[in-house]
Amino acid sequence: MATATPVAATSDVDLGPATALSCRECGTRFPLGPSFACLECFGPLEIAYDYSGYDTEELRKRIEAGPASIWRYAPLLPVPADVAGKPNLNPGWTPLVKADRLGAELGFTAQLHIKDDSGNPTHSFKDRVVACAIEAARAFDFTTLSCSSTGNLAGAVGAAAARAGLRSCVFIPHDLEHAKIVVAGVYGGDLVGIEGNYDDVNRFCSELIGDPAGEGWGFVNVNLRPYYGEGSKTLAYEICEQLGWRLPEQIVIPIASGSQLTKIDKGLQELIKLGLVEDRPYKVFGAQATGCSPVAAAFKDGRDVIRPVKPDTIAKSLAIGNPADGPYVLDIARRTGGAVEDVTDAEVVEAIKLLARTEGVFAETAGGVTIGVLKKLVESGQLDPAKETVAINTGDGLKTLDAVAGTGLTATIRPTLESFRAAGLV
Amino acid sequence: MATATPVAATSDVDLGPATALSCRECGTRFPLGPSFACLECFGPLEIAYDYSGYDTEELRKRIEAGPASIWRYAPLLPVPADVAGKPNLNPGWTPLVKADRLGAELGFTAQLHIKDDSGNPTHSFKDRVVACAIEAARAFDFTTLSCSSTGNLAGAVGAAAARAGLRSCVFIPHDLEHAKIVVAGVYGGDLVGIEGNYDDVNRFCSELIGDPAGEGWGFVNVNLRPYYGEGSKTLAYEICEQLGWRLPEQIVIPIASGSQLTKIDKGLQELIKLGLVEDRPYKVFGAQATGCSPVAAAFKDGRDVIRPVKPDTIAKSLAIGNPADGPYVLDIARRTGGAVEDVTDAEVVEAIKLLARTEGVFAETAGGVTIGVLKKLVESGQLDPAKETVAINTGDGLKTLDAVAGTGLTATIRPTLESFRAAGLV
Repeated sequence: MATATPVAATSDVDLGPATALSCRECGTRFPLGPSFACLECFGPLEIAYDYSGYDTEELRKRIEAGPASIWRYAPLLPVPADVAGKPNLNPGWTPLVKADRLGAELGFTAQLHIKDDSGNPTHSFKDRVVACAIEAARAFDFTTLSCSSTGNLAGAVGAAAARAGLRSCVFIPHDLEHAKIVVAGVYGGDLVGIEGNYDDVNRFCSELIGDPAGEGWGFVNVNLRPYYGEGSKTLAYEICEQLGWRLPEQIVIPIASGSQLTKIDKGLQELIKLGLVEDRPYKVFGAQATGCSPVAAAFKDGRDVIRPVKPDTIAKSLAIGNPADGPYVLDIARRTGGAVEDVTDAEVVEAIKLLARTEGVFAETAGGVTIGVLKKLVESGQLDPAKETVAINTGDGLKTLDAVAGTGLTATIRPTLESFRAAGLV
Repeated sequence: MATATPVAATSDVDLGPATALSCRECGTRFPLGPSFACLECFGPLEIAYDYSGYDTEELRKRIEAGPASIWRYAPLLPVPADVAGKPNLNPGWTPLVKADRLGAELGFTAQLHIKDDSGNPTHSFKDRVVACAIEAARAFDFTTLSCSSTGNLAGAVGAAAARAGLRSCVFIPHDLEHAKIVVAGVYGGDLVGIEGNYDDVNRFCSELIGDPAGEGWGFVNVNLRPYYGEGSKTLAYEICEQLGWRLPEQIVIPIASGSQLTKIDKGLQELIKLGLVEDRPYKVFGAQATGCSPVAAAFKDGRDVIRPVKPDTIAKSLAIGNPADGPYVLDIARRTGGAVEDVTDAEVVEAIKLLARTEGVFAETAGGVTIGVLKKLVESGQLDPAKETVAINTGDGLKTLDAVAGTGLTATIRPTLESFRAAGLV
C-alpha cells in the first residue's frame, strides 16, 4: 500500500488555516503535502487547523459578507485566503428548499428542507470536493489533475481543471455508457478507458501515483483526498447558515464511501466549537440502496465491522461495496441517535418521482435513495416528523435519465379541441 | 386572432410596481390581466410600471440585501413584494464567469465574461420567465399552468408548477426525442403529445385559450406572455450588478423569438433611468444559427422586414423561423451599433467544445451559437476585443448531448503502467 507520495516542501505552502495532516486513528501529525495514509498506522489522514484566532461574531460577519459560493467559508477550509479570486468553478451556496409539499405527503409537522446540490456547476456535490482538491493541487505545484471515476467525478474534475488551466487526465472503465463518456470528455482533458472494472481502475491509479509517469499528478480522491474531503464540510456550513445559524434536528445523507456523511458531522461539530451555532442534539441518518447496503446491514445487525458487498443497484454513484468510511458512519449514526437505512431500486425510482412531483426537483438516483430512505425512516418511526429535518440531494436527474425512462406522454392527440376533450384531461 | 381572453377583475391584483398593460406599438393601456395583444392595433402588450417612488440609493441597498435569486429585483418586476416567501423555484443570480482563458484564445485584451444561466434550477434561462409567469398565474387565479414547447420550457413549467402546487399541462410534438419527454414528464404534470409539428402545437394552444376547455389555464408564453417576458430583464440587472453596477460595453445574446434580447435591452435602459448605472454607450449583438437566421439575414441586407424561414439547425431551442420580436431586435442592434450574426452547426459544435475546454462550462447548442458568433464577430472586426464584453449561455449541455456525441475516449488501455506509457500521454 502506498502510504504517501514524496512530500513536496511544505514550509511555504499557503492553505489558509490548515496547519498539518493528522491521522484519524493514531493522531500522528505530518506536514501538509500530497499524502493520504498514516506512515505509523496506515490510518486515513485528515486536515488539522488552527482556528484559535477567530472571534465568533467577526467570523460570522466575514462569512455573511463573503461570496455566494463555498469560498465564503474559506477561513474554515484548507485553501488560501484569496481563493475566490483564482480561476475555479466557485461551487456551493446551493438552495435549501423549503419542502412543504413533500413534507405534507410524508406527514411532517415540522419544517422539511431539501439541500439541493444539483445547483452546482456540473450539477453534483462533487464540485465542492474537487474545488478544494484543486487548491491543494496548485499549492503542491501539480500540473495534471486526475481521478478514477464512474461518472459525476469525471465531469467535475474535467470542468474544474479546464477553468483552472490545468491539464486533466481521468481514468474510467472503458465500457461506461456513451453519455457518461461524452459528459466527461467534453472539457477537452484526456479521458482514458481502462479495460477492466472500477476496482481495476482504482488499482491502476494507485500504481500510477508511485510511478515516475504519475509525477506532478494530483489524484483528487487519492493523494489529494484529505483536502478533497474537506469540501463536503461546506454542506454542513451552508445548511446551518441557511437555517439562520441553527443546527437541523435531523439530517439524512446518502452513503457511498461514507466520506460526505462523516465530513458533514465534522462540519457541524466545528460550527458548535466555533460558537457559530448553539450546541444541541442532532441526529444523523445514512441512506443506501439495498443493492449496495453494507453499512445499513452492519447498523441493523449491531456490528462494528462492514462486510464488503458486490454492488447491484441503479444508484451507481453510491455503489461502493467496501466503503472506507463505513465504520465512522456507524459511529456517528449511533452516537447521535440516528440510523442507517436502505431502499430498493423500485423505491428509489418512486422517490425520484415523488420529489419531482411535489417540489420540482429532479434528483439523480442517489437523491432518490435519500428521499426514499427519508420516507422509510418516517414510516418506521425512526425519524421524527415533528422535528426540523434536512435531506440532501447530491446530484441531478439529467445524469441518470435511464432510471425514469418509463416516464411518457399522458396522452397523444390530434391538434383539435375535439381530440383534446376526448382525452379526458378536462 | 385571439387578442385577449376575458380579463379577470384586476383592481385587486397585486403585481408590485406593475400598473397596466401597454401596447408596444400604439401605447394604448389596458388593465392588468391575462391579455397579450392590443385590442386596437394587435400589437404586443408590455407591462407598464410605476417606479416613481424609488430613491436610487435606497433601491440599490434593498436589492443588494435581497435574496440570491431574481427576487432581489422584485421592486422592478410584475410580482408581489412578498414573492420570495411563496413556493417557487427562485431562479437567477447565476454566475458571471470571468472568462480569461476563452478571452485569451479569442484575442481579448479587455475582460470577457460568460453569464452562465445553466445554473438555474432546471438549467436554462426559462426558469426566469416561468417564475414571473407563475406569479401572474397566481394573481389571476389560474389553476393550470400550460405552454407549448419543444424542450427547455416544458421542464421549466413542469418543475415550477410542481413547486407551486399548481396543475400543469404541457403540449409538445408527439415525436419529440424520448429523453426530452422524460425530462418534461418527470414532474408529474400532464404531458400531451400533439400529432403535428411545433406550429401545429402552437395553433392548438391558441384555440384552447379561447375555448371553455382552457378556462382557468395560464399559458406562460401566450396569455401570460407580457409577464413571462419580463423575467428576461433580470439577466440585464444581474449582469450590471455583478459588474459592480456598471453597463457592459458589448453584450452577445442568442435570438429565438428575439424576446430575451429586447428585454435585456429594456432592463439596461431601466437601470440607466433609475440611476443604478451610469449612462454610457453599449452595443447589443444578436446570435443565430445559420440554419435559422432570418434576423441575421435581414440585418445583413439592411432590411426592416424579417422573411420567415424553415428552421434546419441543431440549435433546436433557437429554431423559430418567424421570430415575433425580430424587428425590435434589428432596431436595437442598429441603434446601439451592434450587429446580428450567424454560425453554422459545425461552428456551434466547435464553440461548445471551445467554451468547455477553456472555461469548464458545458453549454447547450444555443450557448454554442452565442460563443460561435462571439468568435466570428471578433474575427470579422464587428466586436471590439478591447472592450468589456458579456456573452450569455442560456442553457446546459446535458440537454443537447447529441451535438457533441462524437466526443470519445482519448485512449483505451489495459490496467498496467506499461500499457499507459505506450498510449503516449506522458
